[in-house]
Amino acid sequence: MTHTPSLRLFDLAGADEQRRFSPYCWRTRMALAHKGLPVHTIAWRFTDKEAIAASGQGKVPVLVDGERWIHDSWAIAEYLEDTYTDTPSLFGPGAGRALARFLNQWAAETLQPAIARVVVPDIPAILHEKDQAYFRSTREAAFGQSFEALASQRPQALDNVRRLLAPLRSTLGAQAYVAGAQPSYADYAVFGAFQWARTVSPVALLEPGDPVAAWMERMLDAHGGLARGVAPVRATEEARS
Amino acid sequence: MTHTPSLRLFDLAGADEQRRFSPYCWRTRMALAHKGLPVHTIAWRFTDKEAIAASGQGKVPVLVDGERWIHDSWAIAEYLEDTYTDTPSLFGPGAGRALARFLNQWAAETLQPAIARVVVPDIPAILHEKDQAYFRSTREAAFGQSFEALASQRPQALDNVRRLLAPLRSTLGAQAYVAGAQPSYADYAVFGAFQWARTVSPVALLEPGDPVAAWMERMLDAHGGLARGVAPVRATEEARS
Repeated sequence: MTHTPSLRLFDLAGADEQRRFSPYCWRTRMALAHKGLPVHTIAWRFTDKEAIAASGQGKVPVLVDGERWIHDSWAIAEYLEDTYTDTPSLFGPGAGRALARFLNQWAAETLQPAIARVVVPDIPAILHEKDQAYFRSTREAAFGQSFEALASQRPQALDNVRRLLAPLRSTLGAQAYVAGAQPSYADYAVFGAFQWARTVSPVALLEPGDPVAAWMERMLDAHGGLARGVAPVRATEEARS
Repeated sequence: MTHTPSLRLFDLAGADEQRRFSPYCWRTRMALAHKGLPVHTIAWRFTDKEAIAASGQGKVPVLVDGERWIHDSWAIAEYLEDTYTDTPSLFGPGAGRALARFLNQWAAETLQPAIARVVVPDIPAILHEKDQAYFRSTREAAFGQSFEALASQRPQALDNVRRLLAPLRSTLGAQAYVAGAQPSYADYAVFGAFQWARTVSPVALLEPGDPVAAWMERMLDAHGGLARGVAPVRATEEARS
């Protein structure tokens, strides 16, 4: 890299365009910050499909680097790592990238589906008007039940999240970050799930004293407090939609 | 290391002393093989508490290296890594050790408890007579139900295992081993869970075509086919106790 790149990121936003809430976009935001790469983020809503059509698909994050369009948070992480080789590594040497892939998948395939059953009923309250019908119909079809039915099962869903966190909890009881003494992409992949919950729902996923909660505070402090830039949803905001 | 160490390992065995079946002992067996360290294994049963009293606790694996007694599979892995520094690394550089800890905990706290609900009712059939009462009473207390009740829920328990394997499945669909192109301790930690199932139960956890099944075959081939040394339990052997 001989010049500062001109990076743009399509970043999922709520009715308030400052409420960036996608777990996958947060992976990319943290990865860019880790590498010290400045980015211009573009508030994007679920139904803005044409804005990212050049990526060949309809989901964010989409990173635009000059003429290149890259989508999928893992593909973006690998692109950044392999392109901007003189910036801090997202994976480190050895098995770092391969093992981070497992954490990436665990966050996406175990943790986030469990968290979804807790927080998804709260998401309409923060969404832009134009996304409301799209979000409800696609998500109710995916869950096979209404948001109201999901909300009624929230206590059990929350217990399930806390149970599935056991390996993260014991790991973070023994070391400051998933990746050891310093955070790296494995941390960002998992963090995305918690930042999603924090930015869409007033439900506290973590109990005070949980080592995961202490790690979450460290992640919110990371990179100049980047992720604190979005205020948490407060219980009193629940009726704001 | 300037001489070949004299290592002994207390290794959980069934009625057949060649049936070594502990998921945690298999982690250690594979770690020793990875490092090319010869070991004399000692067949141990659950009720042989006095044989390992010098370790200060009552569970295996227990590794004896000269005058040192080390217990707990993770502690043994770290001991081997930090003591036998001129042998192949179990973790590799960078974040390898920290990330392997998460895999280690995921195997112990998510995967193995789910597999237990499938395979534990089969374990009495392979146990030594002297372990039967101890095993049943401790495990039925832990599950809060009888082996017969557990066995009746096996179809749902098997579905749950396969669902929890999603992140392992997608990872191994993209790379040969958890740790990348070659296996390392993260693979051994997860392998122990599958080798446990293979050596105690005729139930097939994995469907043909699952990338996890192909990885399992590679793991059984590793280190000269060490883990194939124990025959799988066949359905026809179920009544052999």
